[in-house]
Amino acid sequence: MRRVGVVGGGQLARMMAPPAINLGIELVVLLEDPSSGAGPVIPHQIAGGPADEQSLRRLAAVTDLITVDHEVLDLDLIDRLQAEGIRFRPDGATLRLAADKLEQKRRFVTAGIPTAEYREISTLTDFTTAVKDLGRVVVKTARGGYDGRGIWFDPTPEQISPVIGETPLFAEREVDHQTELAVVVARRPAGEVMVYDPVETIQADGMCRAVIAPARVSAEIAHQARVVALQVVAELNPVGVMAIEMFVADDTVLVNEVAPRPHNSGHHSIDSAVTSQFENHLRGVLDWPLGSAVLLRPAAMVNLVGSSAGTDPREMVDAGLAVDPAAKIHIYDKTPRPERKIGHVSVCDDDVEAALHRAWTVAEAMGCEVRA
Amino acid sequence: MRRVGVVGGGQLARMMAPPAINLGIELVVLLEDPSSGAGPVIPHQIAGGPADEQSLRRLAAVTDLITVDHEVLDLDLIDRLQAEGIRFRPDGATLRLAADKLEQKRRFVTAGIPTAEYREISTLTDFTTAVKDLGRVVVKTARGGYDGRGIWFDPTPEQISPVIGETPLFAEREVDHQTELAVVVARRPAGEVMVYDPVETIQADGMCRAVIAPARVSAEIAHQARVVALQVVAELNPVGVMAIEMFVADDTVLVNEVAPRPHNSGHHSIDSAVTSQFENHLRGVLDWPLGSAVLLRPAAMVNLVGSSAGTDPREMVDAGLAVDPAAKIHIYDKTPRPERKIGHVSVCDDDVEAALHRAWTVAEAMGCEVRA
Repeated sequence: MRRVGVVGGGQLARMMAPPAINLGIELVVLLEDPSSGAGPVIPHQIAGGPADEQSLRRLAAVTDLITVDHEVLDLDLIDRLQAEGIRFRPDGATLRLAADKLEQKRRFVTAGIPTAEYREISTLTDFTTAVKDLGRVVVKTARGGYDGRGIWFDPTPEQISPVIGETPLFAEREVDHQTELAVVVARRPAGEVMVYDPVETIQADGMCRAVIAPARVSAEIAHQARVVALQVVAELNPVGVMAIEMFVADDTVLVNEVAPRPHNSGHHSIDSAVTSQFENHLRGVLDWPLGSAVLLRPAAMVNLVGSSAGTDPREMVDAGLAVDPAAKIHIYDKTPRPERKIGHVSVCDDDVEAALHRAWTVAEAMGCEVRA
Repeated sequence: MRRVGVVGGGQLARMMAPPAINLGIELVVLLEDPSSGAGPVIPHQIAGGPADEQSLRRLAAVTDLITVDHEVLDLDLIDRLQAEGIRFRPDGATLRLAADKLEQKRRFVTAGIPTAEYREISTLTDFTTAVKDLGRVVVKTARGGYDGRGIWFDPTPEQISPVIGETPLFAEREVDHQTELAVVVARRPAGEVMVYDPVETIQADGMCRAVIAPARVSAEIAHQARVVALQVVAELNPVGVMAIEMFVADDTVLVNEVAPRPHNSGHHSIDSAVTSQFENHLRGVLDWPLGSAVLLRPAAMVNLVGSSAGTDPREMVDAGLAVDPAAKIHIYDKTPRPERKIGHVSVCDDDVEAALHRAWTVAEAMGCEVRA
């Protein structure tokens, strides 16, 4: 069994291609735009959107299982196809949970997993009560938020009243966090797991800008992060890779949200770990033995983000390598736009601050927005 | 400039795909069999053989330069196309020299590069004289030999008389060598080089079976090997990666032959070095800054060779990973046949003997011929 269908042809599917080539796994990608991301690098393609039933059925017909590189899915359709025996890994239940931050909060609380206190918001009164109970809050839509969309920090009633009742919302106590962490866990169907070192994510405007591996936290916090990640995985039973995002506040780890797929916080693993998150995702969904998640070298990863200057980093890879020949540059072959992730660069260095500085220098040389 | 044409769709082109994906380099492959090797993993293909002029012209029309994954080329055609301005990297002169072991010997001797003493053989008398002068000899065809073909160890006159006069031959003093080494060097057009650590190649029946990196030789021999490799590169001026194969006899390094392309002796670098030979080949031919060749971890590589048992290692990757989850398995997607290289496995381990043993264990678990 080694034909894997991938719904969505973005950078995650693209980065699955190298380990698939190595291991002789055939990828078949369902995509709408063959000109970017995975399109130019994966020969076997089926044209179609992630919610297109006939395309999904065609994908299922030529593959052994289906995995996803996509935020927006038709979960009812996936449940229906799954009931017919089409194998989704992760399965529909995991995808449904991952798509619903409010449901995640409920599950975390029920399972005793530490998370920021929250209130559901259906009316403006719910909101004012939440603010009274929790102090400063962050309001989030249960579904559809991504890279800074669907999230309001310390909003006024006027700011959120247009969305109240339109979509499920919740208010979360704003965590005055010292650090944001993420832990990537790979899991096989029977429960075998491999846990990557906790990493530190550096955010700006709701978008992950950089990652430091391992996180600059105490051994106690790193241990807590691993334990909490394993609690989450034991509760949600994902297959393949899951990323668990966390805050560290008052020397305590709180789970923020999860993503049931290779994640920006794990991209460094391609160049720094024994087994990359992409290889372990494929091994996990195929129910193959997982590879070691051990970090071989400390690393920093910086996302290459389009700038308003109109430069095209795809044409500036040599300029990036010129300033740091040891940098590992990853191009997603996407048309650059401001605030769009179009690649990343990883630098391995025993001194992670130096690694981060070096990675930013490469991003700058490639004409990307630099925003540490 | 980032569109690279590759003549030949074998495992070398296949292994160029991952670094090409990472760096946003578009590969276009000229191949005859799209069902194996690079065929299933590189979308942009032109059908045709390596000596098919119209196909080569089509390849040149859509790429910035052409490199090769092929032993058999039409060198006159390449010279002619090059004279028209089509860029071959390495160029026709390097390819011509690489294809002619006798011409290599002449150049090595002229340049003062240590190599086993030899005699050209045009007649049976040349052969008997060579044996008288040199003792036990190895007879080689100047062109076309590969993986044990076109080579005769200590032959009788009867064995080689059928080929004398048919093809240029030479007799080389049989080197009673302690070890066979190889050094991979990456080079940019202007002369910048990166030199990989000397590795030890383990041969049986004229085929490379395994590689140990770094070679288990003294610092003095390793130094000699690097110096000699740099002499060869300075003499031949290749672009991209060149492998220099050597014997160690009486604590002296003698150059055997060269290959102007990524080489079996450098496959370990994918998993053990800062920059793989395949990435540095692409960076070299594109005239991009080269990456560090530093070995991060000692490694052993074992070729996966088809067995007569009829097993298909492509279907046994999980069995290989089960015996050693840290093994890095590389599948070429070729139909297995006895004595055919269909993949390789690398294991990194500070103890290279342990690494070699582990790699052989994986090969055995995958149903491959095991012949240490």
